[in-house]
Amino acid sequence: MARPVVAFLTDFGTADVYVGVMKGVVLGICPDAALVDVTHDLAPHDVHHGAHALAAAYAHFPPDTIFVVVVDPGVGSARRGIAAELGAYRFVAPDNGVLTPAFEDLGPGRVVALENPRYRGVVLSRTFEGRDRFAPAAAWLAMGVALDTLGPAITDAQRINLSRPQIGDVGIEAHVIHVDHFGNLITDLGRSALQRFTASGGVRIRVAEATIDRIAGTYADVAAGALCALIGSTDTLEISCREGSAARRLGVGRGATVSISRGE
Amino acid sequence: MARPVVAFLTDFGTADVYVGVMKGVVLGICPDAALVDVTHDLAPHDVHHGAHALAAAYAHFPPDTIFVVVVDPGVGSARRGIAAELGAYRFVAPDNGVLTPAFEDLGPGRVVALENPRYRGVVLSRTFEGRDRFAPAAAWLAMGVALDTLGPAITDAQRINLSRPQIGDVGIEAHVIHVDHFGNLITDLGRSALQRFTASGGVRIRVAEATIDRIAGTYADVAAGALCALIGSTDTLEISCREGSAARRLGVGRGATVSISRGE
Amino acid sequence: MARPVVAFLTDFGTADVYVGVMKGVVLGICPDAALVDVTHDLAPHDVHHGAHALAAAYAHFPPDTIFVVVVDPGVGSARRGIAAELGAYRFVAPDNGVLTPAFEDLGPGRVVALENPRYRGVVLSRTFEGRDRFAPAAAWLAMGVALDTLGPAITDAQRINLSRPQIGDVGIEAHVIHVDHFGNLITDLGRSALQRFTASGGVRIRVAEATIDRIAGTYADVAAGALCALIGSTDTLEISCREGSAARRLGVGRGATVSISRGE
Repeated sequence: MARPVVAFLTDFGTADVYVGVMKGVVLGICPDAALVDVTHDLAPHDVHHGAHALAAAYAHFPPDTIFVVVVDPGVGSARRGIAAELGAYRFVAPDNGVLTPAFEDLGPGRVVALENPRYRGVVLSRTFEGRDRFAPAAAWLAMGVALDTLGPAITDAQRINLSRPQIGDVGIEAHVIHVDHFGNLITDLGRSALQRFTASGGVRIRVAEATIDRIAGTYADVAAGALCALIGSTDTLEISCREGSAARRLGVGRGATVSISRGE
Repeated sequence: MARPVVAFLTDFGTADVYVGVMKGVVLGICPDAALVDVTHDLAPHDVHHGAHALAAAYAHFPPDTIFVVVVDPGVGSARRGIAAELGAYRFVAPDNGVLTPAFEDLGPGRVVALENPRYRGVVLSRTFEGRDRFAPAAAWLAMGVALDTLGPAITDAQRINLSRPQIGDVGIEAHVIHVDHFGNLITDLGRSALQRFTASGGVRIRVAEATIDRIAGTYADVAAGALCALIGSTDTLEISCREGSAARRLGVGRGATVSISRGE
Repeated sequence: MARPVVAFLTDFGTADVYVGVMKGVVLGICPDAALVDVTHDLAPHDVHHGAHALAAAYAHFPPDTIFVVVVDPGVGSARRGIAAELGAYRFVAPDNGVLTPAFEDLGPGRVVALENPRYRGVVLSRTFEGRDRFAPAAAWLAMGVALDTLGPAITDAQRINLSRPQIGDVGIEAHVIHVDHFGNLITDLGRSALQRFTASGGVRIRVAEATIDRIAGTYADVAAGALCALIGSTDTLEISCREGSAARRLGVGRGATVSISRGE
């Protein structure tokens, strides 16, 4: 059997010992696990940001990967912890909607509440369930423990309303859902919706004070320092600045509106 | 035998190639090692910060884990490098006191000076012993080399005075030993000392201009944006701001005083 | 056979999911790979910075390590992707000169263009070839696929002019090629060139407003807070400030000139 992969998405940052400690816990239960950091720089306490990051990442991992997704403003409260088997993947997370894209893409699957005390830490910290609840659950799944051993099945896992573009007859309002390291503005508008809207005609894209009149194929299609719009690596509309930061250039960030209308 | 775990705590940051190079050295000697970053963002040259991070992390790792702890203001000087076997764990570090919490918690154990040239790099850089001395020593331990093969036993390893709360009859002065990614202020006051002091009575906590009158169970026990005091994941008193940064809110950082008195 | 090592140098940062996604792709093809982050904080789009980081790192990794080096201002354009076998190592990168130090140190070796569609992602994103072209190529090499299976041999891989000191009869002009996490200024002047120049005589080093009159053995040879010049861990001249940041102290960064003349 292939080495199990456990992949982490959190808002813990990497400066503290928290992420390392979670990995120590996983290796104590499943020494053969391959541990992958997807990101630990989710916006703190921001379940929506976590959901979008998960959506951009999970499908590129091998089948059977176990994702530990911890953005958890309700840590220690009555909100449940859950584990889910969805398509070829498994997920462990607080029950706060952060898994919504996986539920939407991969179907309802099977979901359990993490209630079996045998598969969590001896002491359950009320401020660090990543260490005491989620990491152990992921590690036991990696060891081959069956999902329903971790706790009772549930059918009412929380979902959130993911950011969606508003698509009208004469225009689309898309939204910036992430600003990446390069300052690219990644929107919630998918390629196919954009293509249906523009068909074979032109396009006009407005964001902050800027107007862009075509969809480029890649950054190198425009001059260095120029703004461009293109379909990025997650198959959504992205506003970029070649060898520069569109976010800084335009002074906009996550949540900004990008307006698309038909060109002349 | 389980795959050996080598865990790193350094002040090297992650932007340079230094950490990757140490891992390359370890894998060249022990290809099966599982490498875990605990943190590379210790305050530069700050042995006390390193010691507290180690204290918060090591016990969550599996037995036999080898910790490489490099905060090393004296790199290249006459200070020794050491390896220690303490309880179920092994440690490799400069002899500057950074292992103090492990010595205190796990007993004197066995300690050697890293003097055997066979188990270090061919050239010993005077500015990067992490690469040429500590990484090789850890990797050889991971390969099963006996501790005392690395050099002569010593009994005078350096220790530092870890931060401790001052506990008096009418009040406790605790100190902020770490500010985490979320802006939580983590203090040196342990749960049991706090409980002995307050017994069943009330508590009043003062930090900067703020006063907090009770110990919450978790962040979610207070309103969003409110300050709270709680026992955090390392079982010490922590000052937090729900879904916000207590450090920014209060304008305080590491070293700040937190005063505890009995409530009315 | 030892577990294959795949080591990453990119300018992707670690806040986004990009690096994790590349690792997911590698593990999907080669589940046993040991994945090492060398750095993801190369200066964005800066091929020279990437080349110098590679030069500082690769030789410390075990033979057969595969380096994935992605600094790619021309992503999606006509520039090729390449894989190279040079000495004991293999490299996968855009054909933009980022591998120059490996070509210079390890000889011409064998180089292929990554043209075989069988060894890349099903869809080839024009903005994220790290995921769709370079990660798969590295993973297939790790699985034992022969270099020339990935595409046709080429002999005209791009090279760049690496930063070099100007060495004259009466002085040397060296250049800062990297500022590290500690604020050390790492220059392009190697130990042997410096020693030939100064022979047994004295040395005078000028950088910004400061003058340094000797080469120290290590940071600890000078007082805390003092500037010093020494031969650093990459065997080149480095300007440092003991327990402080030379970069901040001198107000200089990458590209700054360091002038060396003979001492009195």
